[in-house]
Amino acid sequence: MRAYNFAAGPAMLPEEVLNQINKELFNWKNTGVSVMEIGHRTKIFQNLLENLQIKLKILMQIPDNYKILFLQGGAQGQFAAIPMNLVKYNKDVDYFVTGIWSKRAADYAKAYANVNIVTEVTVNGGIPDKHEWSLNSKAAYAYYCPNETINGVQFASIPDVGDVPLIADMTSSILSEPFDISKFGLVFASAQKNLGIAGVTLVIVRDDLLNNNLDILPNIWNYKLLSACNSSVNTVPVFAIYVMDLMIDWVIKQGGVEEIAKVNKRKASKLYNYIDSSNFYSNSVDKTYRSQVNIPFGLQSSELLEIFLDMAVQNNLKYLQGHALVGGARASLYNAMPEDGVDKLIEFMDNFAILKKI
Amino acid sequence: MRAYNFAAGPAMLPEEVLNQINKELFNWKNTGVSVMEIGHRTKIFQNLLENLQIKLKILMQIPDNYKILFLQGGAQGQFAAIPMNLVKYNKDVDYFVTGIWSKRAADYAKAYANVNIVTEVTVNGGIPDKHEWSLNSKAAYAYYCPNETINGVQFASIPDVGDVPLIADMTSSILSEPFDISKFGLVFASAQKNLGIAGVTLVIVRDDLLNNNLDILPNIWNYKLLSACNSSVNTVPVFAIYVMDLMIDWVIKQGGVEEIAKVNKRKASKLYNYIDSSNFYSNSVDKTYRSQVNIPFGLQSSELLEIFLDMAVQNNLKYLQGHALVGGARASLYNAMPEDGVDKLIEFMDNFAILKKI
Repeated sequence: MRAYNFAAGPAMLPEEVLNQINKELFNWKNTGVSVMEIGHRTKIFQNLLENLQIKLKILMQIPDNYKILFLQGGAQGQFAAIPMNLVKYNKDVDYFVTGIWSKRAADYAKAYANVNIVTEVTVNGGIPDKHEWSLNSKAAYAYYCPNETINGVQFASIPDVGDVPLIADMTSSILSEPFDISKFGLVFASAQKNLGIAGVTLVIVRDDLLNNNLDILPNIWNYKLLSACNSSVNTVPVFAIYVMDLMIDWVIKQGGVEEIAKVNKRKASKLYNYIDSSNFYSNSVDKTYRSQVNIPFGLQSSELLEIFLDMAVQNNLKYLQGHALVGGARASLYNAMPEDGVDKLIEFMDNFAILKKI
Repeated sequence: MRAYNFAAGPAMLPEEVLNQINKELFNWKNTGVSVMEIGHRTKIFQNLLENLQIKLKILMQIPDNYKILFLQGGAQGQFAAIPMNLVKYNKDVDYFVTGIWSKRAADYAKAYANVNIVTEVTVNGGIPDKHEWSLNSKAAYAYYCPNETINGVQFASIPDVGDVPLIADMTSSILSEPFDISKFGLVFASAQKNLGIAGVTLVIVRDDLLNNNLDILPNIWNYKLLSACNSSVNTVPVFAIYVMDLMIDWVIKQGGVEEIAKVNKRKASKLYNYIDSSNFYSNSVDKTYRSQVNIPFGLQSSELLEIFLDMAVQNNLKYLQGHALVGGARASLYNAMPEDGVDKLIEFMDNFAILKKI
């Protein structure tokens, strides 16, 4: 039996996407070979790459002066690739640190640039107000992570950094709600949450940023080279890109990002409302900055948590354990998690609380 | 209908591997989720990673002082990662240039090291004798590519570089025949030929080489970090590693590398013998250095070649076009290509030659 998979990533895929993979596994589009066996330089696969860019452009309203790239190495690959691509003439860079991932990105950047920490998340998961930020108006870029998966902290809006190119790690939030990409110099997302499976990273970069790379930048991460050859500097991760293409088709079938955002809002509201109304579960993040995607919650003891996780598995609700660094439980509600899964989770949480309170 | 896929890579998978993927696509090992959805830090997947290392150790007789790593970024990622990992204390490195891939590796290395070209391939595809090599006995490492896929040139034996750590790009030759890994400091192979699908690269590195990295080395490519955490510095390409595991099981079921090598030898001999006996097709590579894996062959004109490739497709023999840089035709005979496929190819080539000679 298929389970509801609440993992933070690699995460759940829509059933329809798995069905499509299954349907054409042995013979992709009448080629006589599986998509896993198809050459990345064949016309049919290059067409997929081009059409995928067009679909992303329409879905996310990406202006023509942005390049859409597909890379290997995950988000952490980009933690290195971004400064290597952008700091040739200006080594001063700004980083917002609001959780583990933006902290790690800032640490990576120190090998290539002078890192200024703009602000850091507060103990209760709040993000300090703009007047407390130490922004550098001459920075090569300002970097932030809109949604932090581990502590469940999310920016309430896009930070205003003036004319400095803004960069966002959207690995856990891309396509979860609409956003205005023209406010960004670069956004990127590793695929294993809302874009398919682990092994490919989407980078969308404004073309005026393409000429600032260090000589030590490996060609496979060179945005300028990648944009000149349909991301095919070397063998692309063919199957992961194919799955991304199916995911984008699925988002389009759901009615686009606006429709998905409505469902996501309901999913998160239901769960937070239940947690807040309960005296059994807790989430201590400042309400303004609560993640709409990854919802961590605590129980009264680690013994209770263990029983909770075990019983959840028996009820077909899987991978609810929190990240090792913070403990507790966590429900990740990416696009592929149906509203029904959240309803089932809340029902289980309530039954568990009643049982344990007796 | 499934085709015989002669592509140089991404390449053919064994039917049994596709069947296994198909069988457990929706529910992997009773987890209730697809392997595409499983977390890389789950116990069940970490077990796969550990067991895969054990199987590789047995299959390739890898001594205990070697680390087995799984990385993203393909072979070209390693073109950068290798010098970044190895030249902290010694920037002098040796490269054999015997084709496009070793040439490109040498070019990449120039951003991080002082590159000495040991020797270059001759016009007729020969590799100059040892007494013509300009080896540096104090180099940090000596690098070569045993089999070059584009020009179809292969070393007849492992080059003797004395005490300098030898590095080999085995992307197209790994598991095609047995070799003594204790002669190497490091071998690596991108997966999309004999190890599964594009998106993961195997690195096997001797542990005395783990402490020589430059500060600019991205963590995701840091061999020392990777060896300390089961390659899980960041999210690994889960599905590609899973397919590699299935490929290794398949090699074991074939009787191991020795048995596969016998079949490979027959496959290559049959095709070369046919080409050499024909006055219609030609391969001009020095016989001592002919690739046993990628067999390029010419026809008398580009018009004939086009008809040949078209008719081959009609006969279910696909992706026989040579690399754009050299033209002509090419048959890649990786492990998954059954002997039957080579027989069918030769039969077709012969019929085509007879038809065109009339």
